Amino acid sequence: MKVPPRLYIDQPLHSGQDIPLALEAAHYLTKVMRRRVGENVRLFNGKDGEWQSKIAQIERRQVVLGVENQLLQQIYCPDVELAFAPIKRSRQEFIVEKATELGVRNMQIINTEYTSQKPVRLERLQTISIEAAEQTERMDLPSIVQAGDLKDWLLEFPTDRTLVFCDESGTDTVPILPALQNHKSKSISILIGPEGGFSKQERDLIAQTSGALVVSLGPRILRSDTAVVAALSMVQAVHGDW
Amino acid sequence: MKVPPRLYIDQPLHSGQDIPLALEAAHYLTKVMRRRVGENVRLFNGKDGEWQSKIAQIERRQVVLGVENQLLQQIYCPDVELAFAPIKRSRQEFIVEKATELGVRNMQIINTEYTSQKPVRLERLQTISIEAAEQTERMDLPSIVQAGDLKDWLLEFPTDRTLVFCDESGTDTVPILPALQNHKSKSISILIGPEGGFSKQERDLIAQTSGALVVSLGPRILRSDTAVVAALSMVQAVHGDW
Repeated sequence: MKVPPRLYIDQPLHSGQDIPLALEAAHYLTKVMRRRVGENVRLFNGKDGEWQSKIAQIERRQVVLGVENQLLQQIYCPDVELAFAPIKRSRQEFIVEKATELGVRNMQIINTEYTSQKPVRLERLQTISIEAAEQTERMDLPSIVQAGDLKDWLLEFPTDRTLVFCDESGTDTVPILPALQNHKSKSISILIGPEGGFSKQERDLIAQTSGALVVSLGPRILRSDTAVVAALSMVQAVHGDW
Repeated sequence: MKVPPRLYIDQPLHSGQDIPLALEAAHYLTKVMRRRVGENVRLFNGKDGEWQSKIAQIERRQVVLGVENQLLQQIYCPDVELAFAPIKRSRQEFIVEKATELGVRNMQIINTEYTSQKPVRLERLQTISIEAAEQTERMDLPSIVQAGDLKDWLLEFPTDRTLVFCDESGTDTVPILPALQNHKSKSISILIGPEGGFSKQERDLIAQTSGALVVSLGPRILRSDTAVVAALSMVQAVHGDW
């Protein structure tokens, strides 16, 4: 049995509606997935749950879906946020894909002293995130925002959240698992540095932030993208929806 | 202060020795890292710990290191093994990089019913693993072997090991964190399927294997490469060296 493809649609969803697809989605459905008129497609828009639709029309310039009934109620991922500094483009895209799969509710891209990368292409990151959300069967989309400088971000850090700081430099850290297990808050922000790490001043500021939990991810040095997946897995397992 | 670069050398290491570098390592050291004669380089060979060396000579066709003293005793990563089915090349290379960073002792590439990828290029994967070991500061190298068919691999699975099977299909699973915490063995093999998952027959065989722990990595569908990093992080945090 073929599992129906799953598409994100940026508009309200309700029964009886006809939805003409954008070119890329039409190409994906008919050329990559090779679906034909009458076959099922699942739809979600990030807020109205998952909907059944059927391919009503495939023509050279237009693929149209007919929306039928709601399949699943809307649910949202746990209140887990990821803050990271821009890194090499391919690894940054990887972070966005993985954070989406691992159920992050929002991503904050922050500038740090050792950030040396070019401006991020937010639209490209959003496209990657949408594709990952389609594949991973999540019903909400994570937001991705440029959040300015780390120092300002820390000053405005809400007092009711836990800030999980994965510190590669390794002094004054506790292993992440017991640290998370001894901590009750389920509203969690994970902060991951650039490849060059944080400056001494930045590290002090982070440690002084209310709710900061300075943790270690083991004895080996992890790349930023590895640290993201590792930390998110631990957080979802201990406080999230795993 | 510049941290000395770290190189894997495939030969015994002892004081007073001169080591001429292979072309690629020589290029990396002098062109990428821009090191000069007299600067320090750290060396490891997977079994003799980490050694201090100095660049003794840089000539057009030859870079030579002079080995000085041992810096660190040899240590080995925990007894964690990763078995995975071949997937798309870029994601497979990613798995090898990440598994090396996350301290896997050996990798077994297994064929499954739904495996459709071309033969793996073992040498290329070993090169990626060496680079990752250099970066992540681990002192041993993981082995990477082609381990044949899943069914034979399961028949020969040692009775004293735990087999952590991350089952995307989701019935009869327990969340990975409590499953690992309730299990005492620290000799662990993690089994990750291809993108298409395992067949019903394969899944039954896995579940019947002595020591099998059928676990879930949460409600979202993870790609194979994400599942590898997530499962390895959990195992290192609960039973490994984190």
